[in-house]
Amino acid sequence: MGKRLFKELERSYGFDEVAIVPGQLTINPELTSTKMTVGSLEFEIPIMASAMDGAVSPGFASYMHEMGGLGVLNAEGVYTRYEDPYSVLEEIISCPQDEVTEFLQKVYSEPIKEELIGQRVHEIKNTGATCAVSFTPQNTKRMSPPAVEAGADMVVVQSTVTTARHMSNSYRGLVFSELIDALKVPVMVGNCVTYEVALELMETGIDGLLVGVGPGAACTTREVVGVGVPQVTATLQCAAAREDYFRRTGRYVSIITDGGFRTGGDVCKAMVSGADGVMLGTPFAQANEAPGRGFNWGMANPHPELPRGTRISVGTKGSLKEILYGPTSKTDGTQNFMGALKVAMGMCGAYTLRDLHKAEMVIAPSIKTEGKFFQMSR
Amino acid sequence: MGKRLFKELERSYGFDEVAIVPGQLTINPELTSTKMTVGSLEFEIPIMASAMDGAVSPGFASYMHEMGGLGVLNAEGVYTRYEDPYSVLEEIISCPQDEVTEFLQKVYSEPIKEELIGQRVHEIKNTGATCAVSFTPQNTKRMSPPAVEAGADMVVVQSTVTTARHMSNSYRGLVFSELIDALKVPVMVGNCVTYEVALELMETGIDGLLVGVGPGAACTTREVVGVGVPQVTATLQCAAAREDYFRRTGRYVSIITDGGFRTGGDVCKAMVSGADGVMLGTPFAQANEAPGRGFNWGMANPHPELPRGTRISVGTKGSLKEILYGPTSKTDGTQNFMGALKVAMGMCGAYTLRDLHKAEMVIAPSIKTEGKFFQMSR
Amino acid sequence: MGKRLFKELERSYGFDEVAIVPGQLTINPELTSTKMTVGSLEFEIPIMASAMDGAVSPGFASYMHEMGGLGVLNAEGVYTRYEDPYSVLEEIISCPQDEVTEFLQKVYSEPIKEELIGQRVHEIKNTGATCAVSFTPQNTKRMSPPAVEAGADMVVVQSTVTTARHMSNSYRGLVFSELIDALKVPVMVGNCVTYEVALELMETGIDGLLVGVGPGAACTTREVVGVGVPQVTATLQCAAAREDYFRRTGRYVSIITDGGFRTGGDVCKAMVSGADGVMLGTPFAQANEAPGRGFNWGMANPHPELPRGTRISVGTKGSLKEILYGPTSKTDGTQNFMGALKVAMGMCGAYTLRDLHKAEMVIAPSIKTEGKFFQMSR
Amino acid sequence: MGKRLFKELERSYGFDEVAIVPGQLTINPELTSTKMTVGSLEFEIPIMASAMDGAVSPGFASYMHEMGGLGVLNAEGVYTRYEDPYSVLEEIISCPQDEVTEFLQKVYSEPIKEELIGQRVHEIKNTGATCAVSFTPQNTKRMSPPAVEAGADMVVVQSTVTTARHMSNSYRGLVFSELIDALKVPVMVGNCVTYEVALELMETGIDGLLVGVGPGAACTTREVVGVGVPQVTATLQCAAAREDYFRRTGRYVSIITDGGFRTGGDVCKAMVSGADGVMLGTPFAQANEAPGRGFNWGMANPHPELPRGTRISVGTKGSLKEILYGPTSKTDGTQNFMGALKVAMGMCGAYTLRDLHKAEMVIAPSIKTEGKFFQMSR
Repeated sequence: MGKRLFKELERSYGFDEVAIVPGQLTINPELTSTKMTVGSLEFEIPIMASAMDGAVSPGFASYMHEMGGLGVLNAEGVYTRYEDPYSVLEEIISCPQDEVTEFLQKVYSEPIKEELIGQRVHEIKNTGATCAVSFTPQNTKRMSPPAVEAGADMVVVQSTVTTARHMSNSYRGLVFSELIDALKVPVMVGNCVTYEVALELMETGIDGLLVGVGPGAACTTREVVGVGVPQVTATLQCAAAREDYFRRTGRYVSIITDGGFRTGGDVCKAMVSGADGVMLGTPFAQANEAPGRGFNWGMANPHPELPRGTRISVGTKGSLKEILYGPTSKTDGTQNFMGALKVAMGMCGAYTLRDLHKAEMVIAPSIKTEGKFFQMSR
Repeated sequence: MGKRLFKELERSYGFDEVAIVPGQLTINPELTSTKMTVGSLEFEIPIMASAMDGAVSPGFASYMHEMGGLGVLNAEGVYTRYEDPYSVLEEIISCPQDEVTEFLQKVYSEPIKEELIGQRVHEIKNTGATCAVSFTPQNTKRMSPPAVEAGADMVVVQSTVTTARHMSNSYRGLVFSELIDALKVPVMVGNCVTYEVALELMETGIDGLLVGVGPGAACTTREVVGVGVPQVTATLQCAAAREDYFRRTGRYVSIITDGGFRTGGDVCKAMVSGADGVMLGTPFAQANEAPGRGFNWGMANPHPELPRGTRISVGTKGSLKEILYGPTSKTDGTQNFMGALKVAMGMCGAYTLRDLHKAEMVIAPSIKTEGKFFQMSR
Repeated sequence: MGKRLFKELERSYGFDEVAIVPGQLTINPELTSTKMTVGSLEFEIPIMASAMDGAVSPGFASYMHEMGGLGVLNAEGVYTRYEDPYSVLEEIISCPQDEVTEFLQKVYSEPIKEELIGQRVHEIKNTGATCAVSFTPQNTKRMSPPAVEAGADMVVVQSTVTTARHMSNSYRGLVFSELIDALKVPVMVGNCVTYEVALELMETGIDGLLVGVGPGAACTTREVVGVGVPQVTATLQCAAAREDYFRRTGRYVSIITDGGFRTGGDVCKAMVSGADGVMLGTPFAQANEAPGRGFNWGMANPHPELPRGTRISVGTKGSLKEILYGPTSKTDGTQNFMGALKVAMGMCGAYTLRDLHKAEMVIAPSIKTEGKFFQMSR
Repeated sequence: MGKRLFKELERSYGFDEVAIVPGQLTINPELTSTKMTVGSLEFEIPIMASAMDGAVSPGFASYMHEMGGLGVLNAEGVYTRYEDPYSVLEEIISCPQDEVTEFLQKVYSEPIKEELIGQRVHEIKNTGATCAVSFTPQNTKRMSPPAVEAGADMVVVQSTVTTARHMSNSYRGLVFSELIDALKVPVMVGNCVTYEVALELMETGIDGLLVGVGPGAACTTREVVGVGVPQVTATLQCAAAREDYFRRTGRYVSIITDGGFRTGGDVCKAMVSGADGVMLGTPFAQANEAPGRGFNWGMANPHPELPRGTRISVGTKGSLKEILYGPTSKTDGTQNFMGALKVAMGMCGAYTLRDLHKAEMVIAPSIKTEGKFFQMSR
C-alpha cells in the first residue's frame, strides 16, 4: 500500500515546529543592524503593521514611522468608506460577539469613497511619515494612481491568494507590470506561498512580496477552504525564488512574511527562513495606540458569502514602544520584538539581516509543559 | 535496531494533517463548475448525504435533489423496518444516552419489510427527485431488483469493508458483475481504502466507489477493531486506481470519499486528494430538515455483538440551503460547503473538479491555538 | 548540523500510532479460528491474563481456562507469601492512595513460602484448568521444579528486562537451556523488545517469548529509568526474530505481546505486528471475578528502592465473559476483545492468526476529537 | 513544491521524544559504577547542581559534595551582590508573582562585590567540599583568578550561548586558551549545542562543556528569541565532537548536559546521548536544603531588557539524599535519580557511564494517558 498514490505530499513547517541553531560566532546585540529596504525605501526596523482596520489608522501609521517601521493603511476599510471611521470602529468594538460577523458584513458593504483615500494619505504624510496604502487587485488599477498622486510612498496590492495571472469575468486581470510602470513608487504584492508564483510575481517588477496564506488560526482560511501553507515553508520557498531571481537579474525583491506571528521568536524564525521583513497584525492591535482598542479582525472576515475568521478580543498589552523595544517585565516573548531580534542576531553572529539568513534552523516541535515543573537555564 | 522488522509501515494522512497549496493561476469562484457524474447520472454539486437514518429520510432525499446533490436512503433502516418510522425516530431521539446502544440494537432487530422498500422509493420519486437506495451486501441480490423496478435510479452496496471477493458460510458472496448486469442502473459500492481493492471493484463494472473505513471518531471501528485508513491516504490510493483503470479501459469510475468530514476545508482536501464527490452524514444530520432532529447514529452502532459508535447529539445548525450554500455568519467552516469549494477552486485556478485534482497539497498538521492570540490574514 | 551525531535514532511506534489496512479478500468472522499454541499447549483464544495479583488468583486462572485462555499466577505475589492472601488483598484495596506504595513495599517484603506454591498449583489443577506460574529469574531455578512437580503445565520466567546473558554478584545467572532441559514443560520467558535478544532467548530452547518493556503508562519504567520500546515496534522486531529462527530451525516460538493494551483494536494491532498471543492485565483486573476488585498494581511498583507504577483504580466493568466475548453495549472497544479480533480477521481475510500476520498496517496517529462533531461511517 | 527551499531543516529531538532500548546483556545495578571526571577532578556521581540562586548556596554546595556530586555557585548572584543574601532570597520568595520579574531585575542590578566571591569560596572550602564557581564571559577574566586564589577548584564560564569567538564593543572577547593557562584549575564552559562550536571550544583547552540552549520551558529563550536545540540532539552533536577530538588528541573533554530534565529517565537518556554528566536546577531547588525554599529562577529572567523565564514555584519534595538516592515511595521518576541511573545501566548491561554511551535509543514520543486506563507491566 502507499506505492500507488494519486499524488505525493511533502511536509511543511510552521513557526511552532522549528528552532534556530546558535551560530559558530556570537556577537553583542549592540553591534547588529536591523535595516530593511523595499525598493528605494529604507526602514530602521524590518517590521510592518498589517493593513487591518483594528491595527492601523492614519495616526497609527505615523507612530509606526516614529518607531522606525511602517504601518500600512487599508485603503478599502473603514477609513475610506466612512467620513468618521472612529464612530464605526466604536460600534464594531461594542458589538456583541455573536452578532459581529453579520455587523462587519454590513459595515464593509458601504462603498469606498475615493476622495477619502487621498484625504487619509494626506493625514499620514502631514505627520512626516512614510505612507503605504493597500488595495485589493480589483480596485488597484483605478484607485492606486490617485493615492500616489496624493503622496503615497508605497502601494500594496493584497488579496488572500495573489498570482501574476488571475482569470475573472467581472474585471480584466490586473497586469502588475503595467501598474508598476505607471505608479513610479515601490509596489508590494501578496499574498503568495510558493516558489513558482513568487518568481512570476517578481518578474512583473514588484519591489516586495508578502508571504502567507492561511497562516494563523483567526484567519480560518485554512479551516474553511482547506488552503494554506505554514509560514516557515512558505518563506523558505519564496526566499529561494528571491535568491534565484537575484542571481539571474541582480534585482533584489524583499520578502515580507505576513501573519501567524505570536512571539519575538517567531519573528526571528521568519528572518532565518529568509524573510527581509515581517508584517504583524495582532501584536500591534494590542498596542495602547491601536484604533481597535483591544479588538482585531481581518478582511476575509466580513466576506459577504464566505466569512473566514472573526473579530477577536486581543486585549491591550502596552505602548507601541514597549511592544517593539521594551523594556518589559513580560517574559513570554510577546513584547520587545526588536530586543528579541537583536539578541537572536547576536546568538547567530549576524551583523545584518542578510547575515541572519545564513543561520541554521532545526525541526523541533514546541515544548508543551502542561503544568509540569522544569529546569531553567541561564 | 529496526533493521529487522516483521513488516514495514508507511505513513498515512487524514484531513487534519494536510493543506492545499494555492495554484500558479487563480480564477474567480464564479467561473468554476462543480458538476459530478456517477455513471449516467449527473449532479450539480458533488455532495451526497449518507444513508444514515438520522440524516436521510425520503423527504430529505427530495430536499437534497432540490439543492443539486443526492441523498441516499438506507434501505435497511427504520424506513423499511417500520410502517411508521417517525415514531421510532422519536423514541430513539428521546432515549437516555446510556440506554441508547441497547435500544438501537432492539430497533434494528425488527425485520426489514420488503414491501416498504418500494413504498419509500415511490415517495422519493413522486417528488421528482433522483432516488438512490443503499443495501448491505447480504441483502443486495434479493432486495435491490424490486427497488429498481419501483423506480430507484441508483443502487448503493455498502458495508464497513467491501471487497470484490468475500467468503461466507451463510450466503453466497455477492457477485458485483452479475448484479450490475441485472440492475441496469448505476451501482455504487463501498467502502474500501486501498488501490488493489479499488481496482478489483472497478473491474466488476461498478460506476462509483465509496472510500472510507474508520475515518471518523464516532465510528469507532478504528478504536474497536483497529482497522482503518485516514481519508486523505485512502482517497489518494483509490484515485490512483481510478486513473490506472481509466487509462487502460477508458471507463471513468467516480470516487466518492465517505465520512470523516468536519469542515468545508475537509471537502476541498478530499477533492484535491482525487475524489469526484463526497458523502457526508453529520453535517446533514445538523440540518433543520434532517429526520434525526439534532441526533445521528451509524449502522455499525446497533451491531448486535460488536457495537461501534454511538448516537451522538450533533445539534441543529441551520437550513440545508444554508449548510450547502450559505450565506452564513458562521466562520468555522461548518456552513456553506459549496462556497468553500468554489473559493478553493478559485485559489487553485480550477475550472472543474477534474482541474482541482491537479492542485498540490502539503503535509501541515492542523493548528492548535489553545486560547493564544494570533494574527489574522486578509 | 546533524551530520555529526553521536548515534542514529530510528522511529518506533505504539498502538495509538498505527491502523490496520483491510485486506483484498474479506471473510465472515464466523469462519475464523483464533487458536494459539505455546510449545505443546493449545488454547482456543490467544489471550493470557498477566501474573498480577490484582488480576489472577487461582480462582481467576480457572475462569480464564473456561473461557479458552490462560491466566498466569504470580508465584512470588501475595498468594505464595501469605496463607490467607485474600485478607491482604483486602488491605491493599482499602489503603489510602498516598500510602499505598509504601504499604505495597511492606506487603511484598514478606518472604515467599515455597510450600504455598505447590498448594496454589493444586488449587488451579483441581479445577481442571491449565496451570501456568510465573517466577523472577532469581527464584526460577530453585522454585520452578517443585511447581512443575506439583502439576504446573507451564513456567513463565519474567522480569522487566530479561536477556539470555545476565551478570550478577548475588546469584549465578539463570541458564535457560539447563532450566528447559530440567523442567519438561513449556517455558515462556520475558520481557524483551529487540530482535537480537529475542533470537538469543529462542536459541536457549524456550517455547514462548513475552514482549514489552515500559509499554504502558501505569508502568512508569519508561518515565523513571527512560527505558522502553513501544509495543508495535517491539513486536515487529521479536516477530522478525521468530521468523528467522523458524526458517533456520523449523521450531516455532510463540510471541506474546505483554502490556500496553487498552482496546480490542490494540489486540488486533499486536497480532498484525506479528504476535501469536497477547497478555493483558488491567482489562482482566476490571472483571467482576478479579481478585483486585477494581484495583490493579504491578510488580515493579513495590520495588523497595525504585518503585515504578502505582496501584490504580481500574473499576469493575463486567463479567470476564462479557469482557472477552460480549455481548456488550459498550462502544469504546474495552469489551468483547474476541469479537473485535474476529471482526478484524474478517476484514483482513484471515482464517487464522498466522494469516492475520500477513495483513498490512499503516502509521496513522490516533484521532483526537476533542468534542468536535464528526461523521459516522456504517 | 518543496523542491526549491531556501534551506534544509533537519529534525531534532528532546527527552520526551526518545526511549532507551534495553541491551543484549543485562547486569545487576549493584555492579555499576557512576564515576564522572572533569579534568583532574573525580566525582562519585555524574550530577551537578546548577549555578542558580534558588538551588545552590555555599551550604548547598557542601551538601552536594557529601552526596558525591558537585554544586556550582553562581558567582554573580545574590551571594556575591549582598552581604546578607538570605534576606534578599526571603524577599524574592515572598514577592507576588506579577511583580517578581521586575523585582528580580532590581535585585540583580546591585553590583557584584568582588570581595564576597572569595568569602563564599572560603565558606564552601571550609566544609571540605569541592568548590566550583560560575561567571559570565564578561566577568571571567577579572573575577575568576581571585576566586581560584581563594581556593576554588573549578571555574565555570557560562552564558546562554557561548562560542570560542565572540565579538563585542564593550569588552575584548574572552580568550579561553589564555584563561585556562592562567587558572591552573579545570575550566568548564557553556552553553553550546552544536558539533562545530563544541569542537572549537575543546580546542581552547577546556575540561568540560555545558550543553543546552533553550532546553526547557521555564527558560523561555526558545519562545522569546526562537533560539534553541532540544537536549538529545544537542548532546548527540557535542558528544560526537568529543569523540572526534579525543580520537585526534587523546584528551577527553567531559560533556555535561545542562537543563531540561524532569525525571530520572531524562538523566539516563542524556547519558545514552553521550553525556558524561548532567547539571540540574529545579530538582535540586525542590530539596528541603535548597536556599530557594520551593522557588527557582534563572539568570536570563532578570535580564534588564529582555527577560526570559520567570520565578517558578517548584515546591519542596524531600531531602537532597532522597532526591538523589531514595528510598522513595514516589513513583513518577522525580526522586532517586541515582537509583534510576543504576537500574538503566543494569538494563543496558553498562558497567560504567562510558559503557552506557553504547546503548541504543529510539524515537518514541512520550505516552499521554489522559485519564485512560492502561496495563501495568512488571
